Amino acid sequence: MSQLIRDETGAQRLLGYVLDVARGDGRAACSLDLGPQHLNRTGILHGGIATAMLDNAMGATASLTVDETGRHPFSTITLTVNFLAPGRPGRIEALGQVTGGGRSTLFLDGVLTHQDGTVIARATGVFRKTRQG
Amino acid sequence: MSQLIRDETGAQRLLGYVLDVARGDGRAACSLDLGPQHLNRTGILHGGIATAMLDNAMGATASLTVDETGRHPFSTITLTVNFLAPGRPGRIEALGQVTGGGRSTLFLDGVLTHQDGTVIARATGVFRKTRQG
Amino acid sequence: MSQLIRDETGAQRLLGYVLDVARGDGRAACSLDLGPQHLNRTGILHGGIATAMLDNAMGATASLTVDETGRHPFSTITLTVNFLAPGRPGRIEALGQVTGGGRSTLFLDGVLTHQDGTVIARATGVFRKTRQG
Amino acid sequence: MSQLIRDETGAQRLLGYVLDVARGDGRAACSLDLGPQHLNRTGILHGGIATAMLDNAMGATASLTVDETGRHPFSTITLTVNFLAPGRPGRIEALGQVTGGGRSTLFLDGVLTHQDGTVIARATGVFRKTRQG
Repeated sequence: MSQLIRDETGAQRLLGYVLDVARGDGRAACSLDLGPQHLNRTGILHGGIATAMLDNAMGATASLTVDETGRHPFSTITLTVNFLAPGRPGRIEALGQVTGGGRSTLFLDGVLTHQDGTVIARATGVFRKTRQG
Repeated sequence: MSQLIRDETGAQRLLGYVLDVARGDGRAACSLDLGPQHLNRTGILHGGIATAMLDNAMGATASLTVDETGRHPFSTITLTVNFLAPGRPGRIEALGQVTGGGRSTLFLDGVLTHQDGTVIARATGVFRKTRQG
Repeated sequence: MSQLIRDETGAQRLLGYVLDVARGDGRAACSLDLGPQHLNRTGILHGGIATAMLDNAMGATASLTVDETGRHPFSTITLTVNFLAPGRPGRIEALGQVTGGGRSTLFLDGVLTHQDGTVIARATGVFRKTRQG
Repeated sequence: MSQLIRDETGAQRLLGYVLDVARGDGRAACSLDLGPQHLNRTGILHGGIATAMLDNAMGATASLTVDETGRHPFSTITLTVNFLAPGRPGRIEALGQVTGGGRSTLFLDGVLTHQDGTVIARATGVFRKTRQG
């Protein structure tokens, strides 16, 4: 039942993640099989890529409050990421959740989990709905 | 006199940025010529890639407090990024700065600027020195 | 069965909150009956006092990982607070929760709720155990 | 030439700080002589009171973009505070600065400094202009 979005934007193609906006619970998920190109100097997941996963999942979750395509653009106003554990090779998934807000500005949480159950990072952020042309 | 580090890690090769740890002022800079692969759905710089640039510049700046190679690994504990303006195509540069801390834990600022002078994003974070094997 | 701590520090006496470190679930709670002295220019809860409540509850929750007195000092390294809804007059409670970390550095969440069920603010932070003399 | 605001709101009377919105450089300052009522369990400045000072100075600085009274209400959307050094007894001052934003949403920095020159804390935040009745 999930609707997987692949290779839709330049950044998505570059990083190689898959976005799922059809879980049915209003939460978008962003998953990625970690390869050497996602790792930093010490052989663990690069913090920027971890953040990209969280930002994507949270932004798409925000979009799901507008319609079920998960594609209405939202801008990230601010994002805080806490890095709880190193991201080892394997499959990782970021999941968003709306925690508050109004019509145009939303507060979201995100959690990035390794397939072995380890929580790699947690994020909070503020996103704003963009007017479409 | 700058020492440019290219293609050193998987993530660096993937994203294509260049890291400069030899500006001589204790601040590392991370620069990137934006191409379509760095853009999001609305044609502007992907927030995750903006964050990756800031995280790299800030982490390498932290490393410069240890020695001038800028390679001693530091872990990002937490990072907060404020997105001030959209990142248009062109060249961008992230620059780190130590603002406080002690022997093993450092506070850093980062600023991401477009070649036209626009400040795209500003970050604050906490980094911790990693023991080396 | 709760153990309520009142008037123990200068700041606690000033602000007037009550700290409960004996809920039995490892989470400390900090509660306050809002009076005019806690309000800002627009008649709602002052953001700094909201933050003080969250910081107290989170710091005491960190202390509960050391022993059940909830008094071992932890320093706040960084704190991010998202203000979700205005705090109206009434009783408010901040509740902490450990989300990760190691021996000396802990990640915590906090939530500040009004007695009517409204979530006023949510926080994430990094706390570090202080050596005792 | 400074215009000092004292005892104007309940929270200001409670905490005892003085707000200066007439420095002439668009930055509001909030100062306080620390007494025992501002200290935490370990005898240093309470993190919540440090945050209150920063929040006030930043919010009033945001107001100075509207008019020179520094009183137009702004809501704090999110605030991140990094605690760089313990706040010892003495006089402290928080100072705000606008770093970006548009008509209704502003990004601000804040810095909290001890009279001996020590930077106690630094903050970044997002504030939004409130409609007035």
